[in-house]
Amino acid sequence: MSENGAGYDDLGFAKLDTNREKRTGFPEVVFCEGKPDAFLPKIFQHLVVADGRALGTRASEHQAGLVREVLPQASYDPVSRILSVAPEVPVSLVGHVAVVCAGTADTPVAEEAARVAEFFGSRVTRHYDVGVAGLHRLLDQMDREDGIRGANCVVAVAGMEGALASVVGGLVSVPVIAVPTSVGYGASFNGMAALLSMLNSCANGVATVNIDNGFGAAYLATQINRLAVGGSAS
Amino acid sequence: MSENGAGYDDLGFAKLDTNREKRTGFPEVVFCEGKPDAFLPKIFQHLVVADGRALGTRASEHQAGLVREVLPQASYDPVSRILSVAPEVPVSLVGHVAVVCAGTADTPVAEEAARVAEFFGSRVTRHYDVGVAGLHRLLDQMDREDGIRGANCVVAVAGMEGALASVVGGLVSVPVIAVPTSVGYGASFNGMAALLSMLNSCANGVATVNIDNGFGAAYLATQINRLAVGGSAS
Amino acid sequence: MSENGAGYDDLGFAKLDTNREKRTGFPEVVFCEGKPDAFLPKIFQHLVVADGRALGTRASEHQAGLVREVLPQASYDPVSRILSVAPEVPVSLVGHVAVVCAGTADTPVAEEAARVAEFFGSRVTRHYDVGVAGLHRLLDQMDREDGIRGANCVVAVAGMEGALASVVGGLVSVPVIAVPTSVGYGASFNGMAALLSMLNSCANGVATVNIDNGFGAAYLATQINRLAVGGSAS
Amino acid sequence: MSENGAGYDDLGFAKLDTNREKRTGFPEVVFCEGKPDAFLPKIFQHLVVADGRALGTRASEHQAGLVREVLPQASYDPVSRILSVAPEVPVSLVGHVAVVCAGTADTPVAEEAARVAEFFGSRVTRHYDVGVAGLHRLLDQMDREDGIRGANCVVAVAGMEGALASVVGGLVSVPVIAVPTSVGYGASFNGMAALLSMLNSCANGVATVNIDNGFGAAYLATQINRLAVGGSAS
Amino acid sequence: MSENGAGYDDLGFAKLDTNREKRTGFPEVVFCEGKPDAFLPKIFQHLVVADGRALGTRASEHQAGLVREVLPQASYDPVSRILSVAPEVPVSLVGHVAVVCAGTADTPVAEEAARVAEFFGSRVTRHYDVGVAGLHRLLDQMDREDGIRGANCVVAVAGMEGALASVVGGLVSVPVIAVPTSVGYGASFNGMAALLSMLNSCANGVATVNIDNGFGAAYLATQINRLAVGGSAS
Amino acid sequence: MSENGAGYDDLGFAKLDTNREKRTGFPEVVFCEGKPDAFLPKIFQHLVVADGRALGTRASEHQAGLVREVLPQASYDPVSRILSVAPEVPVSLVGHVAVVCAGTADTPVAEEAARVAEFFGSRVTRHYDVGVAGLHRLLDQMDREDGIRGANCVVAVAGMEGALASVVGGLVSVPVIAVPTSVGYGASFNGMAALLSMLNSCANGVATVNIDNGFGAAYLATQINRLAVGGSAS
Amino acid sequence: MSENGAGYDDLGFAKLDTNREKRTGFPEVVFCEGKPDAFLPKIFQHLVVADGRALGTRASEHQAGLVREVLPQASYDPVSRILSVAPEVPVSLVGHVAVVCAGTADTPVAEEAARVAEFFGSRVTRHYDVGVAGLHRLLDQMDREDGIRGANCVVAVAGMEGALASVVGGLVSVPVIAVPTSVGYGASFNGMAALLSMLNSCANGVATVNIDNGFGAAYLATQINRLAVGGSAS
Amino acid sequence: MSENGAGYDDLGFAKLDTNREKRTGFPEVVFCEGKPDAFLPKIFQHLVVADGRALGTRASEHQAGLVREVLPQASYDPVSRILSVAPEVPVSLVGHVAVVCAGTADTPVAEEAARVAEFFGSRVTRHYDVGVAGLHRLLDQMDREDGIRGANCVVAVAGMEGALASVVGGLVSVPVIAVPTSVGYGASFNGMAALLSMLNSCANGVATVNIDNGFGAAYLATQINRLAVGGSAS
Repeated sequence: MSENGAGYDDLGFAKLDTNREKRTGFPEVVFCEGKPDAFLPKIFQHLVVADGRALGTRASEHQAGLVREVLPQASYDPVSRILSVAPEVPVSLVGHVAVVCAGTADTPVAEEAARVAEFFGSRVTRHYDVGVAGLHRLLDQMDREDGIRGANCVVAVAGMEGALASVVGGLVSVPVIAVPTSVGYGASFNGMAALLSMLNSCANGVATVNIDNGFGAAYLATQINRLAVGGSAS
Repeated sequence: MSENGAGYDDLGFAKLDTNREKRTGFPEVVFCEGKPDAFLPKIFQHLVVADGRALGTRASEHQAGLVREVLPQASYDPVSRILSVAPEVPVSLVGHVAVVCAGTADTPVAEEAARVAEFFGSRVTRHYDVGVAGLHRLLDQMDREDGIRGANCVVAVAGMEGALASVVGGLVSVPVIAVPTSVGYGASFNGMAALLSMLNSCANGVATVNIDNGFGAAYLATQINRLAVGGSAS
Repeated sequence: MSENGAGYDDLGFAKLDTNREKRTGFPEVVFCEGKPDAFLPKIFQHLVVADGRALGTRASEHQAGLVREVLPQASYDPVSRILSVAPEVPVSLVGHVAVVCAGTADTPVAEEAARVAEFFGSRVTRHYDVGVAGLHRLLDQMDREDGIRGANCVVAVAGMEGALASVVGGLVSVPVIAVPTSVGYGASFNGMAALLSMLNSCANGVATVNIDNGFGAAYLATQINRLAVGGSAS
Repeated sequence: MSENGAGYDDLGFAKLDTNREKRTGFPEVVFCEGKPDAFLPKIFQHLVVADGRALGTRASEHQAGLVREVLPQASYDPVSRILSVAPEVPVSLVGHVAVVCAGTADTPVAEEAARVAEFFGSRVTRHYDVGVAGLHRLLDQMDREDGIRGANCVVAVAGMEGALASVVGGLVSVPVIAVPTSVGYGASFNGMAALLSMLNSCANGVATVNIDNGFGAAYLATQINRLAVGGSAS
Repeated sequence: MSENGAGYDDLGFAKLDTNREKRTGFPEVVFCEGKPDAFLPKIFQHLVVADGRALGTRASEHQAGLVREVLPQASYDPVSRILSVAPEVPVSLVGHVAVVCAGTADTPVAEEAARVAEFFGSRVTRHYDVGVAGLHRLLDQMDREDGIRGANCVVAVAGMEGALASVVGGLVSVPVIAVPTSVGYGASFNGMAALLSMLNSCANGVATVNIDNGFGAAYLATQINRLAVGGSAS
Repeated sequence: MSENGAGYDDLGFAKLDTNREKRTGFPEVVFCEGKPDAFLPKIFQHLVVADGRALGTRASEHQAGLVREVLPQASYDPVSRILSVAPEVPVSLVGHVAVVCAGTADTPVAEEAARVAEFFGSRVTRHYDVGVAGLHRLLDQMDREDGIRGANCVVAVAGMEGALASVVGGLVSVPVIAVPTSVGYGASFNGMAALLSMLNSCANGVATVNIDNGFGAAYLATQINRLAVGGSAS
Repeated sequence: MSENGAGYDDLGFAKLDTNREKRTGFPEVVFCEGKPDAFLPKIFQHLVVADGRALGTRASEHQAGLVREVLPQASYDPVSRILSVAPEVPVSLVGHVAVVCAGTADTPVAEEAARVAEFFGSRVTRHYDVGVAGLHRLLDQMDREDGIRGANCVVAVAGMEGALASVVGGLVSVPVIAVPTSVGYGASFNGMAALLSMLNSCANGVATVNIDNGFGAAYLATQINRLAVGGSAS
Repeated sequence: MSENGAGYDDLGFAKLDTNREKRTGFPEVVFCEGKPDAFLPKIFQHLVVADGRALGTRASEHQAGLVREVLPQASYDPVSRILSVAPEVPVSLVGHVAVVCAGTADTPVAEEAARVAEFFGSRVTRHYDVGVAGLHRLLDQMDREDGIRGANCVVAVAGMEGALASVVGGLVSVPVIAVPTSVGYGASFNGMAALLSMLNSCANGVATVNIDNGFGAAYLATQINRLAVGGSAS
């Protein structure tokens, strides 16, 4: 089970990419949903031994319990469903990533993005419940202290018709990472309406990640934030 | 071929609904696309004889030519593709319908809506190229003289992600009839992205008609405008 | 948590649009589905303090219980899933909105529309189970006392193939707000068949809202009804 | 190229199913669209030699010309796009199939159905342009002489939302073969809206064939009509 | 609650189409899925009083229990999910409808079709588990006593790729009513693969009903069977 | 219930294809999902009597229990959901099929493929968790002892974007059977993204089976493996 | 432009994979559709210099002309749209691949498959126009001399509902490579119906390639055929 | 037509967003496709007067001609379809954006991205025809001088299954902007397969823009590149 010289550790049921942080600047992250119960704690243990920290997304309460049996220091946030073992020495947060979401029902995805970005060392400001049906709420968040305008990257989270991404894209000069959520009903088709909306944004500077993929947005936002604060992305 | 007592005229290839204006307050309108060449001029002639006017949508230049051979007074607008024979005495325009569109490429559909609403007797104001990527353009149209705020009904025409409808819906207190257009590329899927966006609008007071259906929006806007000016919808 | 001069109240997890009623004529309404348990009662409390009333749609029994703990006067209707706190002085109902539905399984959505319209001050008549497979049932509702023909706006609710909207649209001269429902099976694809059917209605004067969106239809119907009774839409 | 004892003739590029009429009561029919130019005339010739008649659907003008070079007696109808060689002794028409269509733009598909049914020996009545937006036109066709009510089978042809099939299905007691057409625009998605509508008909006794498939409907209607007139379906 | 002269009984929450049997030859049938608990027993009671029998499809065990409280004679088949009250004097079965299905997992839908057809008075033969992966099983059922070949109509039930309908269509001379089922996995998309397959059948004489709609197929098969046995369809 | 001379055994509710192994080289396999409880044990018993072994896929724990009541020797693997009765004399494993999967969450489908291939007599090597996000893990598996390069056929199992199939296809010279899995979220649409990805592979030599269909891939891989080891495919 | 040691030749606009034949056993093949006019002849020239032969699929007549200007020996088949430069010494054809297609309109795709397989050295038998609507035609091809039964691999090409693949899969013991074609109309959705049908085949041993992808099927069939004739796949 | 104080110039048919560069750091760009002939030259003229430069995407040859009549200095690239008027003093190019594409048919979209990024001041390196079917071509581009590894942002352009984005994403530590192209056939559904593939990338740091949207990718890449070179994004 030790590092095999090929850049990964072979656990039999899994090959942990120990080479990843060196290659990409980010450690391997565990997508918990659907992982068999027998594997998850072992994967977390292995990562903590190797890295001193671990991050899992889409974890259930049940999975959190399994991991805590072997790693009592693991913390679980039921809103964002993030299961993590933080490093002993806290990472200092740099730069500025703004996380914006349209409605309170989008909060879980926004929080996944915000917490992951912080885990990766980005300073985050949160601007929630600022959907376009009440435009003044969004506009009011633009230029205040620690407002959206000062960010190096904006993560825009919205379900339903996802118009928030386009409106934000028209107001800022930095990249907007758009996250469609599965919030909505009927013809939202579990987030497809917001996804298509964001892909077709009439505003420039908007790129889209998968439905409900707060993690992916945070990863990109951190890459961009790192570049902006002067170091390399990794 | 005369009225048969059953509320329609039977032309063999078509049954003209002579009862319609009495029943709905609007005369029968001809959807020209796909009508065989041999039928269209006869349908127009018949309607003009009965009503003194006629309106066709989605007419091609070729079809306009065919109809003008028998009805030289017919006028054709290549932008909106409307083919019409106006009544001898102009209809006076009442109330206020605001037609708003996102980009210049949406103009054909917006013009279809504006011209049809005028044909049906609504006073129309046009507010074009006010997409949400440059929000100040839209906001500037709200409260000026004959601005959007004063309308009894707003027709919001947009392709791409169709966010205009949601933003307008959040700014006005009257019904917004949203018209998705097939403008866009890639994952706009010929207007489906805008359609889904509008159906899922987070703003209230937004109803949607078919893709590129400026006519349908004008019909509804006129019904609402008529109700607002004090008379019945018909 | 007090009004911040920017037209909304910031509760941290939510920004209540206190400006909305002034801007649109309707108070903010709460879409309950998916709202975290911790937030919903606070949102209701805040709205009741500000407005003396509150309306939530898509509420579960569980959510109703949570809200009643802090607002015992809240009432919940399990059919329409509406959770509401009525104003102390009942609103007087004006005008006429007709709510029509195709089958008894469409009743929940129709009731959502009817109750919301009444909450907003519209007088409502109900015409349920009048699907086109037995056309005489619908025709019989047209011209009777308080029949469909007398309405300022018709809300047509139907699942399966949604043909009711087209047939009603051909019979009346006022706007028809079509609400597709997810009733049906197989190739109804959770309401998509009815949705497409209504968007493609061969009858004019039909606009469509999202699948199962009785609330949205009621909102529009009330806007139209208000215009028709002589006041402004708000 | 002669019959090979296996129930088909092998032309190299095609295997003509000479066994089909014996097996199914109907001769092989040629779907012309996409057939290479070199093959079509030979196939027609072969069928005429074997059967004394031939029928092709979806034929282009160009294909009609190619076939007429070798079979000058072939007739082509540009509306229904049927290319046929009639038998020398006309078939006598029996029973009653009613072909109903919603709009004049649906006429080509309705005519394909009507002409094919006649080719196969069914007596056909045509009831065109009776869409549900003007219901009285349809109702007027029900009980008149040779009206829809007297048919052994109804073929209902409609594009847009295809509501005609449901309404007819609610009015008659015989099978309705529904044919969605690609007539419409926007969210009709080339007939998919009408197709889904017909598959989800709330009326019973409605079966659906492929979009624009007038031929298939005529085939089925003839099978049913033959059963009704007392003989076998073949 | 008595018949109101308009051809239906108004129960408040439902309008029972008492005119239907006279108009279509079949009594109103209850689609149980989604009906509120409070309504279903009353609807059954009303139909039994009026007709002496009643038929409900898609009934759950729970719904069966509710109805049996008021109508103890009601019988429920958990495979086909049919809930019915049979007439006191059994209907005599006439003609021949063959019900064919591809796999044992399609049995529930096939049984819905078979039992409904029997309820409506058709003699039914069952030919189950004869999918095209083992063609000899199907061929063996063709010409045996009471085989498929002798039927006036064939109901072909299949999930997965639904090829059974095409193969049967090529072997018989009577109408084939194809019923796609939601049996399958992955890219069957809950029956859409089979549905599209059947709509595109290369064999003639195949018409399609909704996914899992055994009832609809039985209704059509009975109409055709009645025509074939010499009487009218109703 | 004995063999009836037509190549199948008729159990009433099922027709077991006893002819299949002779015809195709593989015994009939039971797709357990959705089979009624009453039938499954009988089908297994019948197959064991006839063949001395039986294989069922997509079996639930509950179904495994039912079968074990009558066949205690049946073994069930909860990961792959395979329920099987092995032959008394183990089959010797020949050739080489490599099963490759992208992530640990794809393991259930990969194991279904691996176990089925072994049941059919193929020697299998497993190469799991080698997704393209860490390419070195895959490359490391190519040329080692019993590496992917030595296989007669590769089964490539992947969810999300399914890129593994293309990358493997570019590295080997034998057929790659691609199995999309439903692993992923949001716009993976239950495996459709991976399915489309694999169907559109830019690498040659890649054929695709249904989503999550490990069984189908194993069947094909065994056919190919048999051909390669010198015997016939059956 | 010479080989750069990295296993490919860099032409600036293209990097020719000179390593491919060594790696996969097949030379790089050119997908002509969409290639800019300026590039195609150069690519062909380069491949011919390197390999003495070249193969392009989806070539237009226009593209064939461009290539022939620089490589007069190139031959073009307008049916299969294959543009090829054959090696000077003909390849000897080994083994047996059967190419089966449903209708004459599927011939172009079947011919693409047959010609490509021959180009790669496989002996091919052709069995065209054997769709399941006339099953005896297919059955007659099974056991005759050079019949389908003797092949090492079957390529099954079909449009419409694509049932041919399932039926063939049930009759043979070797792999069936299914090729859906875009032949059909209406709800065939350009081959999607056949594609889904083939992916959901109830017969085992069926793998699917992209719509109209005769080339891909031939590639796979050749790999399998090579394995069967005793050599390696490459 | 002069600046109106509201941050845009009103040309009647268009409202040019003169405020945009100040607000977002990029001038307004013209999406040419679908713009009426009468408007395009005026829009270009206006932008050149205001900014000294102009950029249009998706321009046809015809549109290029129209603009050149009034702006002879405009240049048009038929591959990327970009129509531009360059500033008199060339912009100096800074930083490093790598544009990577899978096949030569993807070149037009890749060139749109590369040229737009250069127009906006980014230094661009091009790495074309490096699809994953020949992985060594891509790997060879990573670490060479001016290789992919040195970029601040990678634009990955691919059609078919779009696997290139995932593979690149696994190899670099900077953001990857993925551009699906409509290159492919059959089940690529005009780029939808590549789009879904990229949205579901198993590699982190991949964000997606619309199908064929090279412009959008260049815009984002420039924003990121500007942040990385030390200045602000605008």
